[in-house]
Parts: sequence; structure tokens; C-alpha cells
Amino acid sequence: MRTATSGLCLGVDVGGTKILAIACDQSGSEIASSQVPSPQGVIPDGGMALADAVARVIDDVATQLGIGPAMLPIGVGLPGMLTLDGVLAFAPNLRSSSGANLARLLAERLGSVTIVVANDADCAVVAEQRLGAARGHDDVIMVTLGTGIGGGIILGGQLLRGGHGFAGEIGHMVVDIDGPPCPCGARGCWERYASGSAVGRLAREAAHAGRLAGLVAAAGGDAEAVRGEDVTAAALEGDSEALALMDEVAWWLARGIANLACVLDPSCVVLGGGLSEVTPLLIDSARQVLPNLLEGGADRPPIVLVPAALGSRAGALGASLIARSAA
Amino acid sequence: MRTATSGLCLGVDVGGTKILAIACDQSGSEIASSQVPSPQGVIPDGGMALADAVARVIDDVATQLGIGPAMLPIGVGLPGMLTLDGVLAFAPNLRSSSGANLARLLAERLGSVTIVVANDADCAVVAEQRLGAARGHDDVIMVTLGTGIGGGIILGGQLLRGGHGFAGEIGHMVVDIDGPPCPCGARGCWERYASGSAVGRLAREAAHAGRLAGLVAAAGGDAEAVRGEDVTAAALEGDSEALALMDEVAWWLARGIANLACVLDPSCVVLGGGLSEVTPLLIDSARQVLPNLLEGGADRPPIVLVPAALGSRAGALGASLIARSAA
Repeated sequence: MRTATSGLCLGVDVGGTKILAIACDQSGSEIASSQVPSPQGVIPDGGMALADAVARVIDDVATQLGIGPAMLPIGVGLPGMLTLDGVLAFAPNLRSSSGANLARLLAERLGSVTIVVANDADCAVVAEQRLGAARGHDDVIMVTLGTGIGGGIILGGQLLRGGHGFAGEIGHMVVDIDGPPCPCGARGCWERYASGSAVGRLAREAAHAGRLAGLVAAAGGDAEAVRGEDVTAAALEGDSEALALMDEVAWWLARGIANLACVLDPSCVVLGGGLSEVTPLLIDSARQVLPNLLEGGADRPPIVLVPAALGSRAGALGASLIARSAA
Repeated sequence: MRTATSGLCLGVDVGGTKILAIACDQSGSEIASSQVPSPQGVIPDGGMALADAVARVIDDVATQLGIGPAMLPIGVGLPGMLTLDGVLAFAPNLRSSSGANLARLLAERLGSVTIVVANDADCAVVAEQRLGAARGHDDVIMVTLGTGIGGGIILGGQLLRGGHGFAGEIGHMVVDIDGPPCPCGARGCWERYASGSAVGRLAREAAHAGRLAGLVAAAGGDAEAVRGEDVTAAALEGDSEALALMDEVAWWLARGIANLACVLDPSCVVLGGGLSEVTPLLIDSARQVLPNLLEGGADRPPIVLVPAALGSRAGALGASLIARSAA
């Protein structure tokens, strides 16, 4: 008699600072959740600390439901490049787990369960396409603006994993060969121009060039002390110089989307991530310039550009949906 | 009794200068072919001249086979952006046919037949993946270097068309925001750096900067008169300055491939098109630098970079394969 768990599944979103687990019913409604801090070690431990933390948060949700974790399909979204076998090949924000096979480590801790691991932006795009902002679209790119830019891609209704599992690393398209260095080793990656850290960098450049006078004054006259958050807050209050800087960021955002559109021809692009407060500003501005940046702009149907609808739970929700599909 | 035609199909490759039709048997072997010049008009005629020419070359091949064209599945590859309905939405090299539905025009001329139209680079990648250089790979990007850069993409074994049919326009990814203007309207498109016309442009830049002294002398001392063909010929003869310029082109080629790899994660990239004489040079050089340009380069499996195997017939052959699949 397992009728209590029928249709339930569990999704986990592993971030750089916290790990969120939610249990969902068949309609995607959340019925239990738990959260723990992410392990912050940088010394490689084969993923042990991370697996322990993820197992703990899963156990906690299962306990809330009064069942064992082995009775649920479980999906885990991770920030990094995952091989098709589930190995975390490259994860700058989870260094201690680099090279670990999280699915196997979790199976060892939780007993015999269906555990699927996936890239976190892949989870988010699955959630937004099935239950959120991109419903009804088969060709969707999710662009998540955080410290960098993450990406999840659905083509013909199918999540794109790529030949080795590494598709969707859209933030590292180089758009300006002589641009600022990126932690990935290249110069001029898209995420240097349109992300949380990009707003800060562009703001400091603008401040050094004599713009953003009000914000520089508020920062004690030190151009280098102007932060991205100051600019987004000022933009939301209608400060014209801050709005002009957000227009620059939106232009770069649209430029990268146009690059992706050349390659993939999506019908819908969803904008999510940590810059969500200014997403409406960025979207309004990017919508203005995008048609002029698209090859054959006047001869092609417009691309629908929309804000993410599911907020910070999208990753965990999508992980649960991927687990349900795999179960 | 139609046993004579069983398994036969016909592929047409429409280029800017000529139209080639071939009939193939089930194994992809060519059993008849015909070629006519492409109509050169630029005044919009709704695709009439092009449809007449394509119908003529198809009729000719069918006559060689002693059958009517209505007995064969027919695929037609076209250079331009085709909607999923088969309308040539944007075709800078076939201006007179812009907006035409070639499949319908051909059906009217040839009677009731299976006619599929597709982008020419899409046809080429299908041929190379099924019968050529990318056999055994499910995630393939075909990069064709001509006047510009064309692209065909197969993901998970399926040809990528995109939400509107316009996927694979990879030459118009912007890689250098301050770069030279592109006929598409943007600046710094990839094809400004790695294509036939890019070799000429980079050669003239190098000549003006005092490099390529031998070629400048051969051009009567006029740096502006150095042509791309002069550089590729000199490189093939071992001229060190010309080889250095080809290394530059190869670096840009690899940079664009790395951009595509971030997004799509292919297992194989096929290089084809009009620069085929120097393709071995470009590939050798691009293979050296590609691993350093890939995000997580050391932590991911290498991408197989190979020259196209099917030469100038790939487009027509691929069109026939697409027709066979659709029939």
C-alpha cells in the first residue's frame, strides 16, 4: 500500500549558498520543503560533504511526509557541467565536489531510489516550459542572470543536454574578443556584460568616466565603491543615469539573445535569476532593441521575451519534474 | 509496377550560381544528375524563375531515368532562411525569390509529388552525418566556409530547424562587438573573421600593416590588391607569413566553434565549404587552439573536428536523404 506517495516526487536545488528540497504532487504543487546551507569547503572531498547535505535535506522532506526517501523519484539540480553519466565535471561554485558522481553518492546514502541529477538551469527551463512563463512553447531558452549567466535550452519540446551533457553554458559565448577577462579563462564572455557582476563592472566603468555622479557622491566620491545594487536601486527609483546604464546592460542582454537566436531560433526566451527586481526594466529595454539585432529581423516572427514566472523555486520544481519523467 | 523507382529519390542543391540535381539509390549512390545556371535576377518575381529552373533540372534527371518526376520523393536545398512552411523568408543570394513558397511552386510545375525544401547547410549536415565525415555522431555541427559561414546542426540525431525554421545561422553570431560591419547589419559577426571573404579582409589588413611583403610585391606593391586566394595559395606553398595569417583565421574559426560548443556541446564539428583546399591547414591549426578556448577545456572530452567528406555533392545528397525521410 503506497497510495500516499503516488504521484509525489522530490526536487532539490543545490546553490552556492543553500540547498532547497521540495516535494510536489502531480500538479506541481509544493506540499513540503526543507533547506540547509551548502557546504563551503573548497578542498576536494569527492562530493562527500555535498552528498551528506543533500541526503539530509531529502530525508527531512521525506520525514515531513511520513515516508522513506526510497519511495520517491528524486531529482537534483546542480550548478555546473554534468556529464550524461551524472558526474560533476566542472563546478566552479562547488569546488569540493568536482569530479563526483552525486547520483551514485546519494543512492548509497538513501537506499534504492530513482535519483536523477541535472544542471540547475536545465531544471529551471523545464519548470518554466511545463508550468511557468514558457508554457505552449516548444523552443525555449532560459537565461538566468546571477553572478554570471546560466542557460537552459528546450528544442522541439526536448531538454538539450548535448553530446556530453554540457549544453547550455551560454554565458561563456564570447561577444567581445578584447573584452574583460572572465574566470573561465576567456575574454569578453557574454556574462561579463549582462549579469549581476556585469552591472557592477559597467557601473564602476561609468563612474570612472564621470557618469553616475549621484551614486559616486553617495559612495563617498569613490567611483570604485559604486556597487551594482546601488545602480539597480537607483534605476528602480527612476534615476536617469542609472536607467541609461540599465539600458546598456539590456542592449548586451539582447545582443547575446540575438546570438543565440541565430543558432537556435527559439520562439520564447525566459529571463530569470537574481536580477529579478530589475527584470521588467531590462526586458522592456531589450524588447526595443532585439528586433534590430536579429538577422533578418523584419522578415522573421518576433521572439517572445518574458520574465520567469516561478521565482526561486523553479530549480527545485524542475528537478522534481525531471525525476518524474525519468521514473 | 513501379519497381524501377523503388528506393530512388532526388535531391537538388540551389546555389547562387548553379543548380545541381542528383538521383540517388537507397545506399546514397548517385545514378543520374543534371545542372543548370541559377537565375540571376534581383527583381522580385515570386520565385517564378527559380521554380522554373529547378523544375527543369528535376525533369531532366527524371527523363534520364525514364520516369516522370511525380514518381520520386524530391528534396530541394536552398541558401537562405526557410520557414517551417517552406517559405524563403530571407535569402540575400536569391533576392528575386524572397518570400516565395518553393515547395508549392514546384508542386504546381511537377504534378503531385513529395517535395521538401530545406536550408542548404541543413542538407549538407544530414549527408555528412548519415554518409560522410560525422557518421556515428548524434550531436554534430556542420560549418561551411564560403563567402560567409553557413551552418547545419544535428542534435540527438535530429536536424535542428528551430521554432520558425531559422536555426543554424551560425555565421551571424557576433564575436567582436567593435568589429567590421557585416551585410546583415551587425558588426563583428563570426563570418567576418573565418570565411573566404574574411581571409581577403585579414590579408589586406596584414598587408597594410607591413606583413605579407612577398604577396604585396606580387600585387604590384598595392596592399589593397592582395586577395584571399593569393594568401591561401602561398600558404599551401609553405610561405611562413601566409601560414601565420591562416593561423589567425584558424584561431577565429576555433573561437566560433568554442562559442557554439558552450551552447550546444557537439561531439563532432564538420568543416566544409569553398575553402576546402586549405581545410587541412585550418583544421590542424584550429585543433591546436580549440581545447584552450573551451570552457572547462581540460575537464571535458575533446570535440572531434573533421573535414567534410562528401564535397560539393553533399547538399544535393542531403536534400535527397531529407526527401526520403519525409516520403
